[in-house]
Amino acid sequence: MKTIKLAVIGGGSSYTPELVDGLIKRWQNKEFLTRQLALIDIPQGKQRMETVAGFAGRMLAKAGMPCEISTWAGLAPGLDGADFVISQIRVGGMKARWTDEHIPVRYGIAGQETTGPGGFACALRTIPVAVDIANHMQNHCPNAWLLNFTNPSGIVTEALIKHTQARVFGLCNVPIGIKMGIARALGIEPHRLSLDVSGLNHLSFVTGLYFDGRNIMDQVIDSPLLEEYLDKIRAGRHLAYFVEDLNVIPGSYLYYYWSRNRSIEDQQHDIRSGKGTRADEVMRIEESLFSMYADKTLENLPPELKKRGGAYYSDVALNCISSIARNLPQIEVLNVENKGAVPGLGANVVVEVSSTVDGAGPKPVAQPRLPAEILGLVQKVKCYEELTVEAAIEGSVGKAFSALINHPLVQDGDTAMNLLRDILDQNSEFLPRFAGKPIPAF
Amino acid sequence: MKTIKLAVIGGGSSYTPELVDGLIKRWQNKEFLTRQLALIDIPQGKQRMETVAGFAGRMLAKAGMPCEISTWAGLAPGLDGADFVISQIRVGGMKARWTDEHIPVRYGIAGQETTGPGGFACALRTIPVAVDIANHMQNHCPNAWLLNFTNPSGIVTEALIKHTQARVFGLCNVPIGIKMGIARALGIEPHRLSLDVSGLNHLSFVTGLYFDGRNIMDQVIDSPLLEEYLDKIRAGRHLAYFVEDLNVIPGSYLYYYWSRNRSIEDQQHDIRSGKGTRADEVMRIEESLFSMYADKTLENLPPELKKRGGAYYSDVALNCISSIARNLPQIEVLNVENKGAVPGLGANVVVEVSSTVDGAGPKPVAQPRLPAEILGLVQKVKCYEELTVEAAIEGSVGKAFSALINHPLVQDGDTAMNLLRDILDQNSEFLPRFAGKPIPAF
Amino acid sequence: MKTIKLAVIGGGSSYTPELVDGLIKRWQNKEFLTRQLALIDIPQGKQRMETVAGFAGRMLAKAGMPCEISTWAGLAPGLDGADFVISQIRVGGMKARWTDEHIPVRYGIAGQETTGPGGFACALRTIPVAVDIANHMQNHCPNAWLLNFTNPSGIVTEALIKHTQARVFGLCNVPIGIKMGIARALGIEPHRLSLDVSGLNHLSFVTGLYFDGRNIMDQVIDSPLLEEYLDKIRAGRHLAYFVEDLNVIPGSYLYYYWSRNRSIEDQQHDIRSGKGTRADEVMRIEESLFSMYADKTLENLPPELKKRGGAYYSDVALNCISSIARNLPQIEVLNVENKGAVPGLGANVVVEVSSTVDGAGPKPVAQPRLPAEILGLVQKVKCYEELTVEAAIEGSVGKAFSALINHPLVQDGDTAMNLLRDILDQNSEFLPRFAGKPIPAF
Amino acid sequence: MKTIKLAVIGGGSSYTPELVDGLIKRWQNKEFLTRQLALIDIPQGKQRMETVAGFAGRMLAKAGMPCEISTWAGLAPGLDGADFVISQIRVGGMKARWTDEHIPVRYGIAGQETTGPGGFACALRTIPVAVDIANHMQNHCPNAWLLNFTNPSGIVTEALIKHTQARVFGLCNVPIGIKMGIARALGIEPHRLSLDVSGLNHLSFVTGLYFDGRNIMDQVIDSPLLEEYLDKIRAGRHLAYFVEDLNVIPGSYLYYYWSRNRSIEDQQHDIRSGKGTRADEVMRIEESLFSMYADKTLENLPPELKKRGGAYYSDVALNCISSIARNLPQIEVLNVENKGAVPGLGANVVVEVSSTVDGAGPKPVAQPRLPAEILGLVQKVKCYEELTVEAAIEGSVGKAFSALINHPLVQDGDTAMNLLRDILDQNSEFLPRFAGKPIPAF
Repeated sequence: MKTIKLAVIGGGSSYTPELVDGLIKRWQNKEFLTRQLALIDIPQGKQRMETVAGFAGRMLAKAGMPCEISTWAGLAPGLDGADFVISQIRVGGMKARWTDEHIPVRYGIAGQETTGPGGFACALRTIPVAVDIANHMQNHCPNAWLLNFTNPSGIVTEALIKHTQARVFGLCNVPIGIKMGIARALGIEPHRLSLDVSGLNHLSFVTGLYFDGRNIMDQVIDSPLLEEYLDKIRAGRHLAYFVEDLNVIPGSYLYYYWSRNRSIEDQQHDIRSGKGTRADEVMRIEESLFSMYADKTLENLPPELKKRGGAYYSDVALNCISSIARNLPQIEVLNVENKGAVPGLGANVVVEVSSTVDGAGPKPVAQPRLPAEILGLVQKVKCYEELTVEAAIEGSVGKAFSALINHPLVQDGDTAMNLLRDILDQNSEFLPRFAGKPIPAF
Repeated sequence: MKTIKLAVIGGGSSYTPELVDGLIKRWQNKEFLTRQLALIDIPQGKQRMETVAGFAGRMLAKAGMPCEISTWAGLAPGLDGADFVISQIRVGGMKARWTDEHIPVRYGIAGQETTGPGGFACALRTIPVAVDIANHMQNHCPNAWLLNFTNPSGIVTEALIKHTQARVFGLCNVPIGIKMGIARALGIEPHRLSLDVSGLNHLSFVTGLYFDGRNIMDQVIDSPLLEEYLDKIRAGRHLAYFVEDLNVIPGSYLYYYWSRNRSIEDQQHDIRSGKGTRADEVMRIEESLFSMYADKTLENLPPELKKRGGAYYSDVALNCISSIARNLPQIEVLNVENKGAVPGLGANVVVEVSSTVDGAGPKPVAQPRLPAEILGLVQKVKCYEELTVEAAIEGSVGKAFSALINHPLVQDGDTAMNLLRDILDQNSEFLPRFAGKPIPAF
Repeated sequence: MKTIKLAVIGGGSSYTPELVDGLIKRWQNKEFLTRQLALIDIPQGKQRMETVAGFAGRMLAKAGMPCEISTWAGLAPGLDGADFVISQIRVGGMKARWTDEHIPVRYGIAGQETTGPGGFACALRTIPVAVDIANHMQNHCPNAWLLNFTNPSGIVTEALIKHTQARVFGLCNVPIGIKMGIARALGIEPHRLSLDVSGLNHLSFVTGLYFDGRNIMDQVIDSPLLEEYLDKIRAGRHLAYFVEDLNVIPGSYLYYYWSRNRSIEDQQHDIRSGKGTRADEVMRIEESLFSMYADKTLENLPPELKKRGGAYYSDVALNCISSIARNLPQIEVLNVENKGAVPGLGANVVVEVSSTVDGAGPKPVAQPRLPAEILGLVQKVKCYEELTVEAAIEGSVGKAFSALINHPLVQDGDTAMNLLRDILDQNSEFLPRFAGKPIPAF
Repeated sequence: MKTIKLAVIGGGSSYTPELVDGLIKRWQNKEFLTRQLALIDIPQGKQRMETVAGFAGRMLAKAGMPCEISTWAGLAPGLDGADFVISQIRVGGMKARWTDEHIPVRYGIAGQETTGPGGFACALRTIPVAVDIANHMQNHCPNAWLLNFTNPSGIVTEALIKHTQARVFGLCNVPIGIKMGIARALGIEPHRLSLDVSGLNHLSFVTGLYFDGRNIMDQVIDSPLLEEYLDKIRAGRHLAYFVEDLNVIPGSYLYYYWSRNRSIEDQQHDIRSGKGTRADEVMRIEESLFSMYADKTLENLPPELKKRGGAYYSDVALNCISSIARNLPQIEVLNVENKGAVPGLGANVVVEVSSTVDGAGPKPVAQPRLPAEILGLVQKVKCYEELTVEAAIEGSVGKAFSALINHPLVQDGDTAMNLLRDILDQNSEFLPRFAGKPIPAF
């Protein structure tokens, strides 16, 4: 069996145990053995990381898997000789996420970790750190693959592909979530289902759906079985009514675009009612999770982890590692360089698309042109993403403004300017490239 | 001198005298002689048309130009043997425009004749009528050129190019207005200025600006001479600050997109204050104009016509007729089939672009790729336009919804649905293709 | 285990036993069971087909595989209920191939089964028959996949994709042959090797080569191990010298283009010396093979079959059937609709390209742009192929001439005209669509 | 009237008097006044240049045009302050052209100044010199336009656009020659005719033909009036028969591709018969012309100049200068950067295409896709051209070989290698970038 060394950056994340659980299963399943697991985090995260490492050690011991865990408060030497690096960091932590979710609400815009001004602020903080990680990899593990799960995943991956030499691709759990949801609703095994997916991270679309290779899109879209699922992702029956004409199943984040008003109303209601945003919720869940992880008797994943979100993320990541390590082709939906696979977008931008993965890494499968009902939205969001990457790399106030005004949820100059001022102000410790750059008064 | 027959559909428009003034000048300038001028309008517009015809007759008589005017309440036989047909109709008249401008305001969206839900409603009413005119031309004047000034000009032209056999192109006075404004500000003769223009009708951009062939974009953008003009079209100094980085001068309609909030606030203020919308204003101006036109002693254009809007429109139209009639190349900014001239848009859609015009008609000049700061917006609006054409042709509620939700000023499913219900309801007499098609309740 | 019905059109081919051998292995390997095998051929081929069927029956019996073989002199009812149809026909038989190989030589052009005027003639004869087969499938097995191995494979597949409703893709053994050759030379197991392939059938190029996922193109191209192989496919050391700069391994048919003169000299020498062309050789081999097949004691594939050519063809075909039947993704080099996967060619043409195959069939993987050194040749040959398809479908003398003059080995009007006259004349019984269409004298 | 300074590099050319004749006419026609005319040539050409300058002086004196002629054996200071620079050089002179025309014939390939291996050799010699001229212009006249008539015009222009900062476009007299030929055959004034032209230099195609704006392509193609003309450029009636289906009129150089065999047979016959190649003929004509030019009594263009070729070249050049100087739009067929105007070719390559010209210089008009019958040839020749530019700039033997083997008239590795050896050998004094670079033996 192939053995690998895996480095996890953001190793102190509450996700890590799920990843370790997956590593054990892959070993039991004789796919590959993770002989070394290096958890890497920032110094402030050392205590959480040690808690995670302790729990992971108990899981591995119980399974009897011969894996050496180490923890590192810094990139080197944990990266040395790694075959795979998973990045799952959150620059600024939950506190920054909380800010990302609350600033937009002041301007009547949904506050969201990845979509809209919240995701924009997160990208500005994250891209320089992600680039730094990739540059360190050149020295410490130049042949390793970097699997980016760090949000906003598509934008960060585009920055890495355009501005570093890393062998990198991006992951997201939304496409696999759709697949698992449909399989569950139809009562079939997931591996008998295959999907054509095309678009951008958190804005991708299922354009083909096959059961044992037979096209079942029509049946699924008309099926009452899926009503609940489709109602939710289509944000209401009135949208479903029209989506049916397209024979396309959108990812759930279309909700923020096609139900813009409801999404902000729901969020405002949650804030007023004291429930807060998703960051508040996740902080509560994480507190609870870490107290369980610290329990020296815990040897199995606690059921509470399900609430954490990111379901199936480790499945996608480990499917890819398994395919690469064994040179065994699989098809996964990944964030990769377009190369013409998604028509109507530039060849050098990053898209979320059905891709083959084998030992040579992922390559996008050519897709049909998205219908006009969707294509324009995707093209505009991609322009926002390209401008966001440029703004973060150059520390450019002008590009940052241009990115925000191009986002479909902003679409207003005064609002973009106010948002930008608040974002730069409240994130100043994480945005050295913008330090001392004035925003014009008006 | 070449002689032509010109038919003007919507001949009773208050614009017609300006057109007649232009025809006289072209004759005096020995470019071409309009021997026959057929004014065509609907029966309800007969009286206004007769008033216009009377005034036009006095203008021609004073100039001594040998031109035979006729008026027709219906397409045939006025179209017979025409060399050129100008379409400047308004389906539903000013009353429908008033509705177009007021419905969106209820939903916090700017009410505008061509941009946003107002322009959408106008397109639904107009496209079937425009297609009918083009089909009549096949029988009555199959070789004639159709110059479409009917709004929304780009969308109507796309419908005509995709769904009829007419030799047609679209006109707008915005690009020539920018040119004349810059020339005035710089104190130079307009013919020494040339512009590269690329984009869509009411969303086009000057990407090159030349004085006697020398690139002066940098100087003009930095020039205090143009500050007032640029401030206005850029909708505020804070936008100007960033637009300078792009070296691009936007048309004034970018205001609705980049200053979305201000534009609706201004309009709401005007409505509350009793000033009303532009339709209210134009109705007042037109009443005044028609009373002047009816004055049997009036032989010259009244200065009040300037307030009517559409300045230079007749210049563009007659420049094109002159170029075609004399097979003499000129460059005008027109709405034509893209054919790859504007990169990033489909080859078969209509764009507003610098075009050569000679006897063979207009052909687009290939342009460089628009920057990401603009391209995404243009691509999304084009998808909206394509869907609007399909909705109008097919009478499709689904396509109509999809068009509205794709418009950057709407971007919300509930709002799109409400807007659509109001629009179909209040325009039902002009939308037979939508008759009896239910909009789903929710 | 999944069970299938397979129909083989051209079932009397000498290739069939290899296919049967593969079916047995797939069953033994627990991939799928071919419960029914329908061999289909034309009435004139009945005797050969029975010989083949007899031998196949002995192979199956020896293996103990529960498969029912049937033979049919006509398409129906053999096609009924098939899950997969393999087409391996030769319209006009070896006699027509002999003619295809000899006509071009008269004009100083290589006579070849698939490349050049020989392949062109073969396509004219074959396309109408292939279209007829696909149309029959609509009635008898509308959900079946059609695997086209019939030559010229890329052109015939393009005709089927453009002019029928069949679920079809094309196969060729050249790409797998390159892979197996490299694996053998390097002494490694083939499954550890993966290739990026892009281009056209019999004109495709390996642009990426990976061993366990590591890019080994540089080493392989420089390796003395591969010298012999590369010398041959590059048609001489002087070409190898330059190909190295491209980091690309061409398929062996580049020989006809890049060593045009040598290829015709070799062939002329063979004809003069009495050795004849490949058709002569294959006829001798086939005579010998069929006498062996008829031997009632033969239960295993005779070693002579290796000389027949088409090595590994059945491996590719059965890999695809296995992937589709089991919905298990693999990557194969196939002839499929481009959809932008090979940049610089139209979206709707057929290309030979690395494709994923799973239950939903094959989909092309997006490839980087071919270098100018190769791209122009590929684009020109594709234009030849498109024109050939149109000529065969329309029975158009003009398109046929245009196809021939566009072929890089012809590139002369007089020659194209003479070739066309000879081809139409000598194939008249197979070209009813060209009957009575005069070729102009000159 | 606008006054200009014009510099002519290759001022000693026999073409110069025609250019001077045109300058006089433009002045008489009140378009522009050439106040300074700087003739520039290499030291070896000084005597011829003085002869030309003397004759030009007499022409100007007779016309009374206030123009100051100067002659310079070197680029500076003749270029100082030029508004326009015309390049009409021949690196290696007629002797090198003679070699270019004779080497290919040894290998059964037409020897031609611009097409095939002859044009390739010419490009290798010329590109470094042309780049050097453009670089000098940056210092001496950075705002001047460079009009490149130097052959091979399209390839040299591509090198200048890709590898210098010059404001440059390329000219050719073939498209205007077709226009004038058709006008003459139809008995109409040329300015009433307009053409859509698209393709590459010496491989462009008329795809639209308008008389006073009316499409007359059908009539012209069917017209017996044009039979003689079309017969010639289509290289025989049998080609004409098919070209009619395309509704396209090719330029005359298609003869070398579509009548490859005839073209070489004709040339071999001419060589055997002692007539020689075009170089021999031109040398005889030039000797005669220069003896006339030297005649102090000659004040008008001698009729013999007509035989020199290049008819109308000065018309195109001066039309462009007139349009640029006066900022007056015209449409000319020029060699410019593609920018998507000719679909199917890269955006950054040089194409020959109908272009608008005004003060801002030439811009390509977007054209429809060329039919497959032509497109593949154009794409392949463009790849040859791109490789030729790279070979000349880099001095790369590998790129040079790749260029030659890609040329449709070569298409053979051994031949390409032999040609390359002969070309490098016989042009060594003009190819310093290739000095000491071995060509591998084989």
